[in-house]
Amino acid sequence: MLFECIQVSIELYILGSSSATPTKDRHPSAQVLKIGSEKILIDCGEGTQSQLMKFGIKQANLNTICISHLHGDHYFGLIGLLSTMSLYGRTQAMTIIGPPMLKDIIDIQLTASGMALNFELIHIETTMDKHHTVYQTAAFSIQSFPLQHRIHCTGFLIQESPKERHLNTAAIEHYQIPVAAYKAIKAGQDYNSPDGQTIPNAVLTTAAASPCSYAYCSDTIFDPQIVPFIKGAHTLYHEATYTNEHADRAELYYHSTAEGAATIAQMAEVKQLIIGHYSSRYGQLDGLLKEAAAVFSPVVLAIEGKTYTIG
Amino acid sequence: MLFECIQVSIELYILGSSSATPTKDRHPSAQVLKIGSEKILIDCGEGTQSQLMKFGIKQANLNTICISHLHGDHYFGLIGLLSTMSLYGRTQAMTIIGPPMLKDIIDIQLTASGMALNFELIHIETTMDKHHTVYQTAAFSIQSFPLQHRIHCTGFLIQESPKERHLNTAAIEHYQIPVAAYKAIKAGQDYNSPDGQTIPNAVLTTAAASPCSYAYCSDTIFDPQIVPFIKGAHTLYHEATYTNEHADRAELYYHSTAEGAATIAQMAEVKQLIIGHYSSRYGQLDGLLKEAAAVFSPVVLAIEGKTYTIG
Repeated sequence: MLFECIQVSIELYILGSSSATPTKDRHPSAQVLKIGSEKILIDCGEGTQSQLMKFGIKQANLNTICISHLHGDHYFGLIGLLSTMSLYGRTQAMTIIGPPMLKDIIDIQLTASGMALNFELIHIETTMDKHHTVYQTAAFSIQSFPLQHRIHCTGFLIQESPKERHLNTAAIEHYQIPVAAYKAIKAGQDYNSPDGQTIPNAVLTTAAASPCSYAYCSDTIFDPQIVPFIKGAHTLYHEATYTNEHADRAELYYHSTAEGAATIAQMAEVKQLIIGHYSSRYGQLDGLLKEAAAVFSPVVLAIEGKTYTIG
Repeated sequence: MLFECIQVSIELYILGSSSATPTKDRHPSAQVLKIGSEKILIDCGEGTQSQLMKFGIKQANLNTICISHLHGDHYFGLIGLLSTMSLYGRTQAMTIIGPPMLKDIIDIQLTASGMALNFELIHIETTMDKHHTVYQTAAFSIQSFPLQHRIHCTGFLIQESPKERHLNTAAIEHYQIPVAAYKAIKAGQDYNSPDGQTIPNAVLTTAAASPCSYAYCSDTIFDPQIVPFIKGAHTLYHEATYTNEHADRAELYYHSTAEGAATIAQMAEVKQLIIGHYSSRYGQLDGLLKEAAAVFSPVVLAIEGKTYTIG
């Protein structure tokens, strides 16, 4: 399959794929998105630190954690992970993006333990009233947007930072552009020559590949209102807790079916869909995959230990 | 090996054997003590619910949880276990014995989740100022006693309830004791015959086997002050985080060496010692076992998935 945006390595590691109750083989939600050398942990169910160890994913350059909501299967592993990081000597600050009460929950457990972490926690609170950029680094930006679940819950759109435009070498030579001006031109500026002539940027460069983006939507009822927030994302992870056979449960508990997830992928015109957050009632996952594939392609199952290339 | 007290089945299942940081093969502290049909969970590190599943230990009749202290490796799995029990339909009350702040930590996480448990939590707070019975059922009693660690921390002595005395059938026949009086006599009462004669209980019965007891001491610095609290226990579980090579660390962090654990076992005259709570630095545990065995025998390693018979 040929994807439209081809750039630096973006990889997604699935650490947990179950919904509220784990099974013998499936763990609660946790994923690591690796953009270049930076790692972002998305949700952190119980046992995440063990899953990181099991799959050999180092904690180096893991400086950002996104927590969608405060149902336990999405964050009960966070305090243990932070504690272990501290015991192993981490000193670099950690940015945690999540619901307002998360800080209080971490704080009370640290207070009870009589121990402070060896590193700073930078808390960024998500809000349910808007879709906005909550965090930005040189390598990526993170937007959060409201999901319709039973409590405060947000999805995340993680986008690599825009790439520099490509220099048109023929035009650069023709207009005798000095090397010192390349950086500004690649950033999109026109060139003003010493004799007062302006060469438009569009003449000197060609567009860079589109930045790749990854959308994470768990947990949510089927909700077309999120489509504008994730439109055109390269890869969409969307929860698919149930098959249509249990659509009544999906509606009751504000979850999605595999068909619902695929419908959102179709409406958002993403390049690929990953489904996960499977109910423990499904020993085999073929039914979920088949149901989604009938609506949207390509779609794959989130399988713990597997790595997915994005872009 | 023949133990002195032989009674109903008491079994200990080890679910976690590591200290603060888990390893690929070892999980944080958690044990299940089974007395007859009742199960008591002692400490509940992260991943305990998965370990219960892995080792096929059913949650039925698990109605009591003891938490020694609020370092994460001893309780971070509790909220997840309680949540899963609720999701699976538990309605029976759960008694939780632990430090004062434990209730607040559970409460804030339940509040954040927007969900109440389907069953009642009965909280019993441990205290650091005395050794006393904190809980009693028909089948067992639980005493807590202070341990010297860095924060509020208690050990537990769990004892099966005293057995009924054995009827001396020859004496029963000789004195023509009616069946209706057996229960009171087995409970230790003398018999008063209709003609005003008193038959002493010691004539009518022989002593029952001594109740078996299990002492749990984790985490603690080497501390002979605990010996009176655990004296004569059948089995002692004592933390042995380090070998003597790291005795300075044991002292610094208020932990014990294997030699220290064995010395406590010797002083308390227990029948057997189980050591655990191993530092992640030890890939192999032979050194810890050898060090303890030089002081006290029999001693065994706490190995996850193994069952130990007590009494």
